[in-house]
Amino acid sequence: MNRTLRHTSALTILAASMLAASAFAAPPGNDPAALGQIRNAALKSDWALERLADMTDLIGPRLSGSAGAAAAVTQVADAMRKLGATVTLQPVKVPHWVRGAETASLVEYAGRPAGVTQRVVLTALGGSGATPQAGLIAPVIVVRDFEELKARAAEVKGRIVLFDVAFDQQMAERGQAGTAYGQAVIYRGVGTRLAAQMGAAAVLVRSAGGADYRLPHTGASGLQDGARIPAAAVSAEDAMLMTRLAARGPLSMQLILTPQVLPDADSFNVIADFPGTDKADEIVIVSGHLDSWDLGTGANDDATGVVTAMAVIDTLKKLDFRPRRTIRMIAWMNEENGGRGGATYLEANKANAAKHIAAIESDEGSGRVFGMRTSVGNEAMKHFAPLKAALLPMQAGALQRADALGMGDLHGLEAAGVPSFAPLIDESTYFNYHHTPADTFDKVKPEDLRRHVAVMAVTTWYLANMEQPIGRANVPPRQ
Amino acid sequence: MNRTLRHTSALTILAASMLAASAFAAPPGNDPAALGQIRNAALKSDWALERLADMTDLIGPRLSGSAGAAAAVTQVADAMRKLGATVTLQPVKVPHWVRGAETASLVEYAGRPAGVTQRVVLTALGGSGATPQAGLIAPVIVVRDFEELKARAAEVKGRIVLFDVAFDQQMAERGQAGTAYGQAVIYRGVGTRLAAQMGAAAVLVRSAGGADYRLPHTGASGLQDGARIPAAAVSAEDAMLMTRLAARGPLSMQLILTPQVLPDADSFNVIADFPGTDKADEIVIVSGHLDSWDLGTGANDDATGVVTAMAVIDTLKKLDFRPRRTIRMIAWMNEENGGRGGATYLEANKANAAKHIAAIESDEGSGRVFGMRTSVGNEAMKHFAPLKAALLPMQAGALQRADALGMGDLHGLEAAGVPSFAPLIDESTYFNYHHTPADTFDKVKPEDLRRHVAVMAVTTWYLANMEQPIGRANVPPRQ
Repeated sequence: MNRTLRHTSALTILAASMLAASAFAAPPGNDPAALGQIRNAALKSDWALERLADMTDLIGPRLSGSAGAAAAVTQVADAMRKLGATVTLQPVKVPHWVRGAETASLVEYAGRPAGVTQRVVLTALGGSGATPQAGLIAPVIVVRDFEELKARAAEVKGRIVLFDVAFDQQMAERGQAGTAYGQAVIYRGVGTRLAAQMGAAAVLVRSAGGADYRLPHTGASGLQDGARIPAAAVSAEDAMLMTRLAARGPLSMQLILTPQVLPDADSFNVIADFPGTDKADEIVIVSGHLDSWDLGTGANDDATGVVTAMAVIDTLKKLDFRPRRTIRMIAWMNEENGGRGGATYLEANKANAAKHIAAIESDEGSGRVFGMRTSVGNEAMKHFAPLKAALLPMQAGALQRADALGMGDLHGLEAAGVPSFAPLIDESTYFNYHHTPADTFDKVKPEDLRRHVAVMAVTTWYLANMEQPIGRANVPPRQ
Repeated sequence: MNRTLRHTSALTILAASMLAASAFAAPPGNDPAALGQIRNAALKSDWALERLADMTDLIGPRLSGSAGAAAAVTQVADAMRKLGATVTLQPVKVPHWVRGAETASLVEYAGRPAGVTQRVVLTALGGSGATPQAGLIAPVIVVRDFEELKARAAEVKGRIVLFDVAFDQQMAERGQAGTAYGQAVIYRGVGTRLAAQMGAAAVLVRSAGGADYRLPHTGASGLQDGARIPAAAVSAEDAMLMTRLAARGPLSMQLILTPQVLPDADSFNVIADFPGTDKADEIVIVSGHLDSWDLGTGANDDATGVVTAMAVIDTLKKLDFRPRRTIRMIAWMNEENGGRGGATYLEANKANAAKHIAAIESDEGSGRVFGMRTSVGNEAMKHFAPLKAALLPMQAGALQRADALGMGDLHGLEAAGVPSFAPLIDESTYFNYHHTPADTFDKVKPEDLRRHVAVMAVTTWYLANMEQPIGRANVPPRQ
């Protein structure tokens, strides 16, 4: 404050005093000056970056049930208590899957010189079953899609099925990364289950990502108790190699995967309330998910979401701004391989859904943010002009509406009528790192993180103080 | 030929007949038409790409002493015999270093939550010593350069030294990739030896490469028998993590590296002569190195060099062009971790050095080629106008002179006066993949490989038929 006062006119000093006074009296509400102050404060702060370093450098991977996940619960709860928020740890029973050994090599193929085998880079998928400790050896069949699998159904039994379906990086660069991901990842979910049902000895998918650094991308398989077979993602390079070798003749692989499915573990959603004033019983959620996959340190997926949600409260706290509605920061547990955190919260808040005015989740990485996405009804869009105006000076004034966002932890609330919000993010390179060892702290650009916090903070504040009704999400029933 | 004849005038038919006749009579020499025919034939052929697939898909890694290296000797010799070349396997005794287990984690650091450790992605360096099977645990000191190591000499004994020196990717993108590599890789060579001399428990270097996909880059350490300590390259991400954690307080690592140094193994240079006519006793070498590191399939480093050298002879064979001088294709063994192939050849050909007119090696990957580099004397440069003219239509007419190229397998010959040549290659992304698992077949663009063969074939032919003296390399004594 000192530096500002030194250079300002009497009029500015008067205005500043009024603002300072208002912070201690009535909340400043959604007037443009308040929104601008929040935006500017966030753009100057590295509080979120420091929390990101704490989470990724000191803890690292946070797969549900792991020591890292437990440490992250404590770390976030402590940090939120320091901000003066009211912290609740909501118990969540989570799946507990633990990676084991994972090696593979191509041991028979046409043209193989004596004594030579080719190593395949792969990583087990979440929920994968295990091979014997010494591994299994089986012929491989490579298919391009579900149609080809169906056509070759008679060959599946006892064999290793590889779905060699390439991630469409060009589509991602055109701005449709989510669609590109959806097209590829269906084989990790439905494909693995289908192969298991058809009697495959094991199932492999080509990694869903657009880079060419021979990285396998893990993620949840569609496998369930009673029908778990060994399942892994191979790098794009290895999928292409196997396709080329299969074109030369019969191909066999030795596969060792020894993950374990342990009994469900005790964990928590971290819920931190920043209480409202005159509408304290109404809730605006701002959130990210605390669990991550186990290969990287989950900086993009989704420490960024958690620390930016946390920083919303830090930003308001530093400005001494109190919202009318309660702002509820949630660090969700188990988004990656079960969705138990979101489900537990929904179950506990069913009766109270109407008091949930809106819910924000950031879970698409730390790329450049240029606005927000939302599932509010069309009729409410006109009430968001001041929010857009406040974000326009930082080139983040876009507000993109869809009938449903379907965010990992919010889709249940959305189906119950709570409008969803999410930052609108450049995802063109997001899936290159997604679920790989390379999702690490250095991938997050400090400037992009500050912008991320600014957009989240201004939006959260705006929702928590809106006079106008934003209505309920109007979600068509799921197919 | 049929398709060409269908659409040509009588004059062209006449010219074509004359060329065809000349191929069976006198060699066509360095007239522009012959050079153009070689260039165009290479640009249409995928023979080199097929050999690249054979070498990388069927064999894969080819580290000296491995089954892969032995298989590659056989594969290349067979392919050259099929072309009618006179093949000699020149025995070479090679170092035999075998990778073992390699895992590491950060087990103590300020702010570490109970039960949490951070995995470090690393890979043993060639010639590394081993830790005990169960690993070692030691404090880590992170240094930025040799100066800092010297200043902190008292701390080195019993500790793990990390040289956190970043590869300068911007310099690489400005066209100085070799310099950027040299600046970083000195720590892998000299740094490892120095740390061993100073009593370090182990030594780590930051990987020399500009990508951010958490890949460790292996390569030869500077360690020798009698002073081998565990030595590894950590990924750039992990080096940065360790630097950040070391800034928070004391840092300890558990390190397991179990490579083995086995007795020297028997291997070979593959030498395939395409005999000359009136100057058959004079030799032009065209070459690449057959061995590779063990993590990837060595497509760029250096299957590309070998198959393009092989394809020079395939191209001339298909055109039925016979050179005046003998063209000697060499697939060198052991460039990566000993240079024994080059040294063995030099020793055997000392008395015959004057008959070696020039030597080409391709060992800088498969990026776009835009000409040649050479260490011919300044006075000879004027004789290369027809070569440049022949390569200009494919935008590869640059001829860049340096006093010495210092190519891995040619520097001894160069010091003995044999002018070196090498393709002039865009290396801006070469070191991102160099010595990593991601150096695979798919990284080689077919069009770039065809261009590579074209430049190598035209240059080799030109050198094998030159009338004018190109003189000897004029190499200043090594420092």
